[in-house]
Amino acid sequence: MKIAIIGCGYWGTHLLRNFNQSEFWDLAGACDLDENQIKKVKNNYPNLYTTNSIDDILNIQGLDAIVISTPVFSHFEIAEKSLKKGINTWIEKPMTSNSEDAQKLIDLSIENNCIINIDHTYIYTPAVRKIKELITNGELGEILYYDSIRINLGLFQHDVNVIWDLAPHDISILNYLIDKKPTAVSATGSSVIKYNEKNLESIAYITIYYEDNTLAHLNVNWLSPLKIRQIIIGGSNKMLVFDDMAVSEKIKVYDTGVKLTNREDIYETLVQYRIGDMYSPALPNKEALKEEVDHFYNCIKNKKNTDTDAHSGLLVVQTIEAANKSLINGGAKIELL
Amino acid sequence: MKIAIIGCGYWGTHLLRNFNQSEFWDLAGACDLDENQIKKVKNNYPNLYTTNSIDDILNIQGLDAIVISTPVFSHFEIAEKSLKKGINTWIEKPMTSNSEDAQKLIDLSIENNCIINIDHTYIYTPAVRKIKELITNGELGEILYYDSIRINLGLFQHDVNVIWDLAPHDISILNYLIDKKPTAVSATGSSVIKYNEKNLESIAYITIYYEDNTLAHLNVNWLSPLKIRQIIIGGSNKMLVFDDMAVSEKIKVYDTGVKLTNREDIYETLVQYRIGDMYSPALPNKEALKEEVDHFYNCIKNKKNTDTDAHSGLLVVQTIEAANKSLINGGAKIELL
Amino acid sequence: MKIAIIGCGYWGTHLLRNFNQSEFWDLAGACDLDENQIKKVKNNYPNLYTTNSIDDILNIQGLDAIVISTPVFSHFEIAEKSLKKGINTWIEKPMTSNSEDAQKLIDLSIENNCIINIDHTYIYTPAVRKIKELITNGELGEILYYDSIRINLGLFQHDVNVIWDLAPHDISILNYLIDKKPTAVSATGSSVIKYNEKNLESIAYITIYYEDNTLAHLNVNWLSPLKIRQIIIGGSNKMLVFDDMAVSEKIKVYDTGVKLTNREDIYETLVQYRIGDMYSPALPNKEALKEEVDHFYNCIKNKKNTDTDAHSGLLVVQTIEAANKSLINGGAKIELL
Amino acid sequence: MKIAIIGCGYWGTHLLRNFNQSEFWDLAGACDLDENQIKKVKNNYPNLYTTNSIDDILNIQGLDAIVISTPVFSHFEIAEKSLKKGINTWIEKPMTSNSEDAQKLIDLSIENNCIINIDHTYIYTPAVRKIKELITNGELGEILYYDSIRINLGLFQHDVNVIWDLAPHDISILNYLIDKKPTAVSATGSSVIKYNEKNLESIAYITIYYEDNTLAHLNVNWLSPLKIRQIIIGGSNKMLVFDDMAVSEKIKVYDTGVKLTNREDIYETLVQYRIGDMYSPALPNKEALKEEVDHFYNCIKNKKNTDTDAHSGLLVVQTIEAANKSLINGGAKIELL
Repeated sequence: MKIAIIGCGYWGTHLLRNFNQSEFWDLAGACDLDENQIKKVKNNYPNLYTTNSIDDILNIQGLDAIVISTPVFSHFEIAEKSLKKGINTWIEKPMTSNSEDAQKLIDLSIENNCIINIDHTYIYTPAVRKIKELITNGELGEILYYDSIRINLGLFQHDVNVIWDLAPHDISILNYLIDKKPTAVSATGSSVIKYNEKNLESIAYITIYYEDNTLAHLNVNWLSPLKIRQIIIGGSNKMLVFDDMAVSEKIKVYDTGVKLTNREDIYETLVQYRIGDMYSPALPNKEALKEEVDHFYNCIKNKKNTDTDAHSGLLVVQTIEAANKSLINGGAKIELL
Repeated sequence: MKIAIIGCGYWGTHLLRNFNQSEFWDLAGACDLDENQIKKVKNNYPNLYTTNSIDDILNIQGLDAIVISTPVFSHFEIAEKSLKKGINTWIEKPMTSNSEDAQKLIDLSIENNCIINIDHTYIYTPAVRKIKELITNGELGEILYYDSIRINLGLFQHDVNVIWDLAPHDISILNYLIDKKPTAVSATGSSVIKYNEKNLESIAYITIYYEDNTLAHLNVNWLSPLKIRQIIIGGSNKMLVFDDMAVSEKIKVYDTGVKLTNREDIYETLVQYRIGDMYSPALPNKEALKEEVDHFYNCIKNKKNTDTDAHSGLLVVQTIEAANKSLINGGAKIELL
Repeated sequence: MKIAIIGCGYWGTHLLRNFNQSEFWDLAGACDLDENQIKKVKNNYPNLYTTNSIDDILNIQGLDAIVISTPVFSHFEIAEKSLKKGINTWIEKPMTSNSEDAQKLIDLSIENNCIINIDHTYIYTPAVRKIKELITNGELGEILYYDSIRINLGLFQHDVNVIWDLAPHDISILNYLIDKKPTAVSATGSSVIKYNEKNLESIAYITIYYEDNTLAHLNVNWLSPLKIRQIIIGGSNKMLVFDDMAVSEKIKVYDTGVKLTNREDIYETLVQYRIGDMYSPALPNKEALKEEVDHFYNCIKNKKNTDTDAHSGLLVVQTIEAANKSLINGGAKIELL
Repeated sequence: MKIAIIGCGYWGTHLLRNFNQSEFWDLAGACDLDENQIKKVKNNYPNLYTTNSIDDILNIQGLDAIVISTPVFSHFEIAEKSLKKGINTWIEKPMTSNSEDAQKLIDLSIENNCIINIDHTYIYTPAVRKIKELITNGELGEILYYDSIRINLGLFQHDVNVIWDLAPHDISILNYLIDKKPTAVSATGSSVIKYNEKNLESIAYITIYYEDNTLAHLNVNWLSPLKIRQIIIGGSNKMLVFDDMAVSEKIKVYDTGVKLTNREDIYETLVQYRIGDMYSPALPNKEALKEEVDHFYNCIKNKKNTDTDAHSGLLVVQTIEAANKSLINGGAKIELL
């Protein structure tokens, strides 16, 4: 199948490499508005067709799919064009800058009988796949809560807050892993440091409610001296800790059981928990982006949605919108429609 | 000075030991309603006067102070009696079960010219003292944010939620370290597991707002397979991480500077942070409770308030009340008056 | 059964507490040459018979056993007396200051029909018991190597080197876990810092050979800024890591398999290993010394040797002697007879 | 300056990339006996001169230097040819398979007025540079001991033992950091697992003696489930721990002081050590191989020896030879001449 890439920045180069190396894809063109980026692409892929015109790309003969790896504000306009031409469309995360646009793209993809894939790459990592497997096969029991931390010190984006920058990763992982419907969002945060006139939040805390008592909480922070990428998932049978910064043993599964004592006198005072054995499953050594590139091909071929389809992309955008609305309203609960 | 202890349960035995060993205090009596507890006390301190009557304790000749180490619902009634007699009063945390009672005790202590100490023991640990010193001497610069995690798996209290159980520790440490006025509270949480009819929360997330952009966040959880006791304090000069579970190097201070690039083109894209050297100060080997016992004596002698006085105790209770109110209202911001 | 303790220093107080609390033992006397130690014992056990005469202790009516918790140079003389009286004898580690004395005590215990227990307490810890169980039930396969590190910074003993001070722990654990006959010892070390005229080694490395290719290595060091207590055991099926400083997950078992490739071309270049799942067994919460105290009683009652009997004590002393001989001879291999 | 590379295997590709990107070097040719390797080189560097003839490479017009990145047994023969032509020569570690060959190459380089660089890359890492700086500026005081661990589970080399494979790294780092003359070597080890008929050691322990009481110890192991790369350096003022597996804070410097008590009674019992503050210096983000490539250029230009010159390469080979000789002789001390 023929594919072309629009947007050849940092992430675009990884996409170019993976589609170029893939046995399934024929890389047919690359587009960037910046001449310097085009030059770099030419250096690495001397025979690749390059252009600064999106229309030229979309007019490539027999194009099966495009990749949109441009700033978020431009996603809708480009995707709209490609979907209208019936071209399968891979969109960098987050899908769009508002949920109305996302919904319009979904409608267009249905009308034009093509698929949309949102590039929530984490879903294709061996670790997230293994956690999904452990949840699906009942190892953890019923999911009680989900607690995620993604904090570090580093480069700031100047035009979006930390929720738009970091939370799409966590919301997409959360929605992939927890097979329950989120109902509402509550968020707090602060632009603790003033680095431009926009006063954007660099720290935020997001609570996500479910129909039952399940609770999810995301901690995203651009200003932490520690780099932490940790998820704790509490289940009624076992509890799981995923530490993405660990060199080995990234996933640990704890055999934790509730010991509800029924005798009146003890019940009156304490409820006891115990920790039993722990085990850490080995993870295969695979590149997530390669997995996603292959998966995209197979889904187009078999007319199936990808594991990170437009509906999952829409839910991420809706959740971010709700979180930002709650944040402005001092943490008030915002329903997800 | 003469002291007596009311309530000889788990924490009471630590109090008995420390007051007994102190060079400043003469332990004059112990009181418990449970005969078995009295027996245990008798075994360890054969010559100590014991009784199951609070009034008997308060009538001990020349009593300078009492310690109230009973369940929280009884704090007010006992403290009211002792303060009316002009006896200096040490109260187990949290001070009272509501802020009105706490305010009444403050008024009584002023009327009767005696002091109240709330036993927020963490304030007297070498680690918290060292952090206070680093903040006070300007090492961290202005405080930007405060992020605390106190989670583990263990014994449950059956009659209060996780906020009343764990958060008093963190709120007292926070208020001691951050010399700014908290203005409002937002909290979310869930009773993810049903262990009795009261449906009390076992997980909660509390955001505390300040007059400026400073933000504090507390994560308290009874259901975590990992035991984490961690505080991150972001300062404008340096950032500090306190890991109370670390065997050594509990405090780490990171030299983190903002590199605000003024050149138009780079400013437009990214704000950069760097991490420089880290250092970890050595901590003296002291027992916090012994420090507090000595401090209580010195404050009574010199007619000064303790570092954990009634006003700090009141603020903790007010913050917990606000957090619980917010929790019921889906995270809505509750002002601290 | 009646027991008395000779030597009431640091470790002696732990022994007193455990024998006093035991349901199996009747603590009948305590002896120390230092009047201050006797006073401390009196304070804690007002009704206990105390004396500064070893003979008085040995003459206690109906005495079943004694504990010798005195400096190593005095072990032989005291044990000789008690064994000649047919009294079962618990000896602090290391058993004696030379292997001839140890052998004589073994002979005496046989002649007088009583047992000797050497207090290698580590053998009774839940962790070492669990490791033994994993080895015995074949979980690790054949034992290939044993690598132990016991290093820290702290108090120095002024009259023995680091091998006599620290290695008895490791040699006793090693001999308990590895059911093979050690045949020779090679050791190197240095008194890297001169703290008295004796120039005793504060760092040493000990290699222990077996009849087959199995190798054990012990690293003992009084001068390390890191406190490490780690054992790695390589087995033909699985490998085990024991980290005694870990707050949790002290034992980790790695599923490591050799992938011997038989194809000529690959075999010629590389032999490959893989790491699969890891698991960490939960450990019961038991005090090792209490286990040993109960075990001593049961062995006397049932006329059986303890798990840390005189033969194991002798082998420890022989190994230390060989290590010190090798150390003086620049690492030359010294046979164990 | 013109350079060519002989041997384009795994490490050769890194060398090709670095010399190609260098502003100082003009990459003039690449040689490999394997046609497949030549093809891969051609793919990445279409304009580069390639050949399977070493003589062709050495006859390149105006060649300033060559890199020998071939199996160790071929180093001597190739280097002999290049040095005789007065070509500066970069040799993969270890320098040669015996010390006589290494000495002959040193003589040839002097005769022909050109330099030899041995590719002990670790010397050029930011971490090792920083440790050297801390030692040189007296931060640690006098060096007392050096304890290194390099263990992991992975690919085996089938034709050399673990000492020839792993120890060159550690011996070169040790010699670079410790500015004292090593005098003798003692080593033990075992081929705990039989993977071919050669019965080569996969575990080894090497002690290196110095003129004074300083001691160095290297632990190298191909069969460890834990990957450890750790160096502890004990100094009379401070002690340093280098953990190369740490994601951050690779170097920690501990303020450890000896507290020699002179009072007779305490001196008789214990020597006390203390740990004070710790700090961890930030490390610049540099690629070691790029540093070495630049350094090689500067040394040729300024007629200076590199920091990893032929004498350092010879000492590494001599130490390995002595270690292997000791190993065969059961750990006996082998003098370094």
